[in-house]
Amino acid sequence: PCPQHRERALARQARLTKPPGSLGRLEGVAVELAALQASDRPDLDAVAITVFAADHGVCAEGVSAFPQAVTGQMIANFVTGGAAISVLARHLDARLEVVNLGTVAPPPVSDGVVDETIAPGTDNLAVRPAMSPEQLDAALAAGDRAAARAAEAGARLFVGGEMGIGNTTSASAVACALLGKPARSLTGPGTGLDRYGVGRKVAVIERALRRHADPRDPLQALASVGGFEIAALAGAFIGAAARGLVVLVDGFIVTVAALAAVRLRPELRPWLVFSHQSAEPGHVRLLQTLEAEPLLCLDLRLGEGSGAALAVPLLRQACALHNEMATFEDAGVQDRS
Amino acid sequence: PCPQHRERALARQARLTKPPGSLGRLEGVAVELAALQASDRPDLDAVAITVFAADHGVCAEGVSAFPQAVTGQMIANFVTGGAAISVLARHLDARLEVVNLGTVAPPPVSDGVVDETIAPGTDNLAVRPAMSPEQLDAALAAGDRAAARAAEAGARLFVGGEMGIGNTTSASAVACALLGKPARSLTGPGTGLDRYGVGRKVAVIERALRRHADPRDPLQALASVGGFEIAALAGAFIGAAARGLVVLVDGFIVTVAALAAVRLRPELRPWLVFSHQSAEPGHVRLLQTLEAEPLLCLDLRLGEGSGAALAVPLLRQACALHNEMATFEDAGVQDRS
Repeated sequence: PCPQHRERALARQARLTKPPGSLGRLEGVAVELAALQASDRPDLDAVAITVFAADHGVCAEGVSAFPQAVTGQMIANFVTGGAAISVLARHLDARLEVVNLGTVAPPPVSDGVVDETIAPGTDNLAVRPAMSPEQLDAALAAGDRAAARAAEAGARLFVGGEMGIGNTTSASAVACALLGKPARSLTGPGTGLDRYGVGRKVAVIERALRRHADPRDPLQALASVGGFEIAALAGAFIGAAARGLVVLVDGFIVTVAALAAVRLRPELRPWLVFSHQSAEPGHVRLLQTLEAEPLLCLDLRLGEGSGAALAVPLLRQACALHNEMATFEDAGVQDRS
Repeated sequence: PCPQHRERALARQARLTKPPGSLGRLEGVAVELAALQASDRPDLDAVAITVFAADHGVCAEGVSAFPQAVTGQMIANFVTGGAAISVLARHLDARLEVVNLGTVAPPPVSDGVVDETIAPGTDNLAVRPAMSPEQLDAALAAGDRAAARAAEAGARLFVGGEMGIGNTTSASAVACALLGKPARSLTGPGTGLDRYGVGRKVAVIERALRRHADPRDPLQALASVGGFEIAALAGAFIGAAARGLVVLVDGFIVTVAALAAVRLRPELRPWLVFSHQSAEPGHVRLLQTLEAEPLLCLDLRLGEGSGAALAVPLLRQACALHNEMATFEDAGVQDRS
């Protein structure tokens, strides 16, 4: 982030025809985007959304309300345009890319899917490491390549989404490992478990966490209890920031990936903008840990990057107001008496 | 609102390719819009924004940080495109109309302003009724005419905004009268008063409220301590709902107008969608009274309809998701196991 552009943006906000501070959170958003893009006129016209998908061996423990085949089926739904993120990307005129890191059942449609298959899903993290160090490297590198493609396509904002039946179990386990918290403090219903299901999920995560040598090491945590798509998201965020791309963070699972990425590269943190606080109860704790104030709070719990996509218009409006409003001098409006 | 369309919309939401409830607040928004528009495919492509502006005699008591001439100057800024609401309307491709109900200084630009001048501002509500019964009728009728023009132009959503130096004093006084609350409970800094300024404002409102015969009568409250633009907003909301137009309510002042309108016509309430909770401390109390759950909370306190305009993309996204997402059957995605 560029301090000169931040100062100039702050000075401009004070001259726009409105009482100082009256645009609330949007003023700070515009100023930060100006600093991050090192531009007097921040813009988010070109948005790149990448959805990373993969299956999870931990589904053998009965941690999801949906069958595993849904991961591949939803990959097809993403590229054929019927999923929530497909609809939102279309209306945002955003570039939507779907990266398959490995599913149990192949997607029924694969045209338009970026194939980065590592394995047909992770191993069962309740009993063994989810992935080998080599598989972790492959997932991180696949994320970085996605960020590179987004940057090359001229994107000004990067949104990462995820799809993977069972992946809130993996995300909660990674969060517990990184934060040294017990499983129950960061485990919730995901896409729709009842109370008994959540209890089972907590027990599975506790078993997984007991296997750990050095849980707070982010690479160890990702390999031991992570998912291919979670690791790829971490790689993508590091790659996006390294290329000067602002990252808009989605919900619980993506925030876990962002936390792992920040632990790996603390200089990433200023590049992260947080879109929403999800209904998953652990999300608010992660946001506090990252000192993040999300823009929206709409009880979302879908994933796919959908919550971030929902916040894009607000960021664009913040830029438009910053860039296009008249100043007191230009408009001939008197300032405070 | 049409109960059959509500039922059909609920049934459709359950078949879309997402876990039930995972789009959170947006699902209920889409269902309500389907019921209000009596449509299986709710849409908010055509949005009408009307900003009502007027001056306030109570400014003689020193209740605002800005000089009164700013009201007319901002009317010019609205129509020449430099104000926040001008920028937002342009990006929403919305119809923006500015209605002048009477200013102390004429707007330096009047081309494109709808002239509904009643008087060069209200009387000083601290010492006399703000307006006569005839002036109140004129303001309500001007609002109704604006709603009629929006409906004739084919709008599917009506946004009302306001501009008037001193109008948070008037709005707080109307709210106190309608709710039978003391001045201090619903009075805040407005566009930027300090602690002493707020104390002065509270004293002014207390003086005004002591003059009242029957403060809870909404017409009496509007005439005695209201403003031309606040009364016009109430008239516009009643007129919009009567014409089947969904109303998106802005911040504190507009919510006071909405409350007065609901007291006059309780059948209006279902037509009101609430966009945001503003930084003005009294707003949350008004929202509670109206059992309203706003979509955004961004510490906004600008007015002009800007907070409502900021929420329009979210409503449009809720409609797009409802209308365009694939169902489980269409996409060949398995439902919960």
